[in-house]
Amino acid sequence: MPTLCRPAVFVPPNVIGLDETLALASKIHAHHEQLPLVLRLIRNTKINKRHIVQPIEETLRHPGFEARNLVYVREAKACIPKVVHDALSHARLAASQVDAIVFVSCTGFTMPSLIAWMINELDFRNDTRQLPIAQMGCAAGGAAINRAHDFCLAYPGSNVLIVACEFCSLCYQPTDLSVGNLLSNGLFGDAVGAAVVRGRGGDGILLTSNGSRLVLGTEDWISYSIKATGFHFCLDKRVPGTMEQLAPELRSVAGEYGWDASDLDFYIIHAGGPRILDDLSHFLGVAPSRFDDSRATLMNYGNVASVVVLDAARRMFEAGAVRDGARGMVAGFGPGITAEITLGQWIGPALSAATTTKAHIEEVT
Amino acid sequence: MPTLCRPAVFVPPNVIGLDETLALASKIHAHHEQLPLVLRLIRNTKINKRHIVQPIEETLRHPGFEARNLVYVREAKACIPKVVHDALSHARLAASQVDAIVFVSCTGFTMPSLIAWMINELDFRNDTRQLPIAQMGCAAGGAAINRAHDFCLAYPGSNVLIVACEFCSLCYQPTDLSVGNLLSNGLFGDAVGAAVVRGRGGDGILLTSNGSRLVLGTEDWISYSIKATGFHFCLDKRVPGTMEQLAPELRSVAGEYGWDASDLDFYIIHAGGPRILDDLSHFLGVAPSRFDDSRATLMNYGNVASVVVLDAARRMFEAGAVRDGARGMVAGFGPGITAEITLGQWIGPALSAATTTKAHIEEVT
Repeated sequence: MPTLCRPAVFVPPNVIGLDETLALASKIHAHHEQLPLVLRLIRNTKINKRHIVQPIEETLRHPGFEARNLVYVREAKACIPKVVHDALSHARLAASQVDAIVFVSCTGFTMPSLIAWMINELDFRNDTRQLPIAQMGCAAGGAAINRAHDFCLAYPGSNVLIVACEFCSLCYQPTDLSVGNLLSNGLFGDAVGAAVVRGRGGDGILLTSNGSRLVLGTEDWISYSIKATGFHFCLDKRVPGTMEQLAPELRSVAGEYGWDASDLDFYIIHAGGPRILDDLSHFLGVAPSRFDDSRATLMNYGNVASVVVLDAARRMFEAGAVRDGARGMVAGFGPGITAEITLGQWIGPALSAATTTKAHIEEVT
Repeated sequence: MPTLCRPAVFVPPNVIGLDETLALASKIHAHHEQLPLVLRLIRNTKINKRHIVQPIEETLRHPGFEARNLVYVREAKACIPKVVHDALSHARLAASQVDAIVFVSCTGFTMPSLIAWMINELDFRNDTRQLPIAQMGCAAGGAAINRAHDFCLAYPGSNVLIVACEFCSLCYQPTDLSVGNLLSNGLFGDAVGAAVVRGRGGDGILLTSNGSRLVLGTEDWISYSIKATGFHFCLDKRVPGTMEQLAPELRSVAGEYGWDASDLDFYIIHAGGPRILDDLSHFLGVAPSRFDDSRATLMNYGNVASVVVLDAARRMFEAGAVRDGARGMVAGFGPGITAEITLGQWIGPALSAATTTKAHIEEVT
């Protein structure tokens, strides 16, 4: 059965702390009439620091969409090889053993996608299936895991590499002055993540089921306006309140598999912001501490869009505290509003070996 | 087994003929030193007419990326409902029976993708899986069929709706004056297509196998430059020559399934331009007339990007001349350079009913 192996995550070396974010907002928007609200919202994110691909002085300049996108491509090409190498290494696979690549990114755009570059430069086979997704925003991390899972169901024993590349700082728009935008400027961070879904023989999260849910009538609540200056992020103030609608959807996906979403052993939740985590734990009836891996991602990296679930999962893998057989959920939330939900069960190296042997026996007999 | 049902295609009412295209090129680029070459290349396309979403006077104006993209969204929302309705009707399915939507489009951009709008407005279930692909260009029609096929392999009996929406005229860039660009201005057209891959019980092309191939080292040959003015299409003059490299890849995909790519009963080939069709028939060793459905799409609609394979397939369905059991290939070509290849076998209504009954029996027993 398909297994999500240990993710690798890279964050760029430029760091901006909460105090600097608040000082910048105060300075740049000194005359904004809702500045006190903005500062309060940013402070409430409890984000200690974020990592960004360029020094803050560069980040605050807008050199035009074309130049920005060239920075996106340059930095993506600089960052991707290492996380891909590490993710393959964690899965004990060579590039040539990968059958499909899911590449998700909403903060820059290329055609062809960077999968073509990866095949050319990183030794993947030229018959690797390409699945680039640019339009699912923060939900794309969950979507990538789910589509990788589906691919392994379609082709048992195949391996899928997931790469999520988000340079949110390259979508900074100095002219966007709504409260939602100013909050976003203090919320998002940059990161690149990768992970392998091994069709057979991996250890990590054995993927058992997945589902997608759209919250009807919320299509404009998280969206991009497409302008000459690039992608402009639009965030409706009703978004944080959607957890009341999403919690029953998570229950529904878990329920279809016979699990109770309120009674799982681990949770990897998209850390869009602190209220999303607080509200979801409330509406699911689980202790806030159960989302600590997601909270750690948020506090240390900010909202890194589709990379959040990979990074929160990485933290869980590295802490090594999950017992074999533990049942859990991965949930990515993003535009649509869409929830991409994964159910899985932890298998450590020993159990994994047993599973592999069993699968092998089933295959042979 | 998954079956690609009869596609539906819509082309907008504004028409531009070959003579008008040549006259416009002569007038606008009167002083271009390579005008004679450009006119010869456009004449050689043998494209009788193309359909475009706006009158030609509007098409030739560039109102800015933002306004262009708003036209894209407006026209997409106007055109999609009818083709989706027709495609569902051809598959004898209601929207509520669709389990996943693959939406492919490279000539406009939205986040969320238009799948969210379709779920909200066209009565699809809110748990419909969303697969938007914006970065595979003309290859995306083949990719959509292949990913729909894969989804049905992962979830037997599920149904996938494919929608391809291409308004190439909205990527017209008056400042791009290379020979490749001027040729493209006379080559591309607008169209919207849809088709259902039914997991069980459809009639049409029974999908038996699929594959993807990248031509190594050609990543920049078909690409977009991303600029303040939008997507700028870059076409290398070496592209038409790639059929010599792609023909063996088509043979390889067919060979893996035990078929001979030179000895199939039908071919649905991406009509990127006349030379692509001529060269491929030469290198595959099949008569040029075997690509007549693709040639009809090219002559009547121009290169409609990811919609080409759906429209060529539509023509084959509507001609009704394929015998039950006939073996064939669908091949989409696009940036990467990527070929997305599908193998399938024709099953008409009668054979389909037999297959359904057999599948039903297998399911019950």
